[in-house]
Amino acid sequence: MGSSWILVAFDLAGIFVFAISGALVAVRKQLDLFGVLVLACVTGLGGGFLRDVLIGVTPPASLADWRYLLVPVAAGLLTFVFHPTLGKMEPYINVFDAFGLALFCVTGAAKSVEAGLSPIPAAVMGMVTAIGGGMARDLLAGRVPVIFRGELYATPALAGAGIAAVLTYYDGPEVVAAFCGGSLCLVWRLVAIRRNWTAPLPRGPASV
Amino acid sequence: MGSSWILVAFDLAGIFVFAISGALVAVRKQLDLFGVLVLACVTGLGGGFLRDVLIGVTPPASLADWRYLLVPVAAGLLTFVFHPTLGKMEPYINVFDAFGLALFCVTGAAKSVEAGLSPIPAAVMGMVTAIGGGMARDLLAGRVPVIFRGELYATPALAGAGIAAVLTYYDGPEVVAAFCGGSLCLVWRLVAIRRNWTAPLPRGPASV
Amino acid sequence: MGSSWILVAFDLAGIFVFAISGALVAVRKQLDLFGVLVLACVTGLGGGFLRDVLIGVTPPASLADWRYLLVPVAAGLLTFVFHPTLGKMEPYINVFDAFGLALFCVTGAAKSVEAGLSPIPAAVMGMVTAIGGGMARDLLAGRVPVIFRGELYATPALAGAGIAAVLTYYDGPEVVAAFCGGSLCLVWRLVAIRRNWTAPLPRGPASV
Repeated sequence: MGSSWILVAFDLAGIFVFAISGALVAVRKQLDLFGVLVLACVTGLGGGFLRDVLIGVTPPASLADWRYLLVPVAAGLLTFVFHPTLGKMEPYINVFDAFGLALFCVTGAAKSVEAGLSPIPAAVMGMVTAIGGGMARDLLAGRVPVIFRGELYATPALAGAGIAAVLTYYDGPEVVAAFCGGSLCLVWRLVAIRRNWTAPLPRGPASV
Repeated sequence: MGSSWILVAFDLAGIFVFAISGALVAVRKQLDLFGVLVLACVTGLGGGFLRDVLIGVTPPASLADWRYLLVPVAAGLLTFVFHPTLGKMEPYINVFDAFGLALFCVTGAAKSVEAGLSPIPAAVMGMVTAIGGGMARDLLAGRVPVIFRGELYATPALAGAGIAAVLTYYDGPEVVAAFCGGSLCLVWRLVAIRRNWTAPLPRGPASV
Repeated sequence: MGSSWILVAFDLAGIFVFAISGALVAVRKQLDLFGVLVLACVTGLGGGFLRDVLIGVTPPASLADWRYLLVPVAAGLLTFVFHPTLGKMEPYINVFDAFGLALFCVTGAAKSVEAGLSPIPAAVMGMVTAIGGGMARDLLAGRVPVIFRGELYATPALAGAGIAAVLTYYDGPEVVAAFCGGSLCLVWRLVAIRRNWTAPLPRGPASV
């Protein structure tokens, strides 16, 4: 009961932070108020939508419970009005974003195991939950997803989701799975931000 | 019986007009015949597909009934051949498009309520039905969705879908829900076209 | 039993070849290792995902069986390391790609008929299975899908899928349906590559 309350609170916090990142991209692309709200909603909810549609759990929880829609809308409106201030706070937002990443990869993996997936696909779905919203944001904003461009972002999510998926699959306690997977993802991602760790690039000239 | 016949006719008319707008974009991007047909189908059917996948009503009605596929294909072929004429008729097409918008937001909201959604998510799904095809068209054509660029397009659809969703949810007669929601969306959109109403843009310089 | 083993082997071979084409695009766009792997997976599995989500067969087979995930990951890693060599082999890859196209259109159509679709929508779903991965690849790589640009690629897939759909729908033997549809698609596509057949473009200047 208490733990479930905490999970919902964390979930909403993750959606909120992701939605702000989507709205900031929209403001920089000079989209109108509606574009800002759509990018906020897509970034905050898109990863979960994609997971739920793929594992066949429809309608997604965020459509069944209207409060999930209010959070990204509020984040979008806040960003629309206060974007000069929020834009400057981006380093802090990146830290919150890492928390969102950690939470989404863990809940995504757990929900996928509960839907009957085995650990490896469930880990992939956990990563998809964590990075899908940002990828959809970039597609709609007309740019190649930033997570393909060297930043170490998806690998921590996959690792955290993998641990959570294995522990959940073998009936580990939910809290332990969430804590172990989430911590790994969070610490890895924060260190990657701090030390500018990057993913490897292909070597040598690409043939045309 | 009669009313259902009218609804199907309206639905096909909306698909037809949306498909023409998709095919015109494809012609301007110099895509080949196949690209024209795909953009016609995606624009005409995409919003309903997205809604049906999200609310879990699969396969979508337009896949179960093959006649729904013929309409956008016919619209695409017509546009492929007669695009110089159709392109000049675009102001008139915008008016028909407003009818399509009004119809799709209303039927999308009603189907979502029937699938078990509460009014707020159902209103959002109604809007998604009305604008999703155009967004998918713009993604495939390689441009940021035009509805993010200031034109007042989605707000009337959301308003109309909201009214239809609330009336359907509280067991109002289907015809009344469709008429009230559809009229609001249609009139608002037509006035917005006429008076060049735009959605607000963010103020101040965006931080980089 | 034996025929089913062959089908799985063909399916995996098709995924492998499609995944290499996705990874090569990613290398050319200078994406990082993660981007290469994602484009490999999306190109190899995306068409089947899209079909399964639309016909309501979730989770997709490639999520239920983790071996389906290993094949595109392996193809992506190979391409990441050996892309200068693989890039030069592209003419050969196009021939393998034609085999993948033929296989995917046939299996996609058959699965759609089994899910209850009638022949015309099933044929369209077969084509979607065959071309959907490549379209998603191009969207994520930030370019208009190459199949809209004149190459004769989707039409053979639609024709092959149509034959397979009709034969499966009228209870023809699975092997015959697969062979007839697949052969038509394969031969047509190979001749189109050889003779540079293109799809027709719109005539006359497009209105602005």
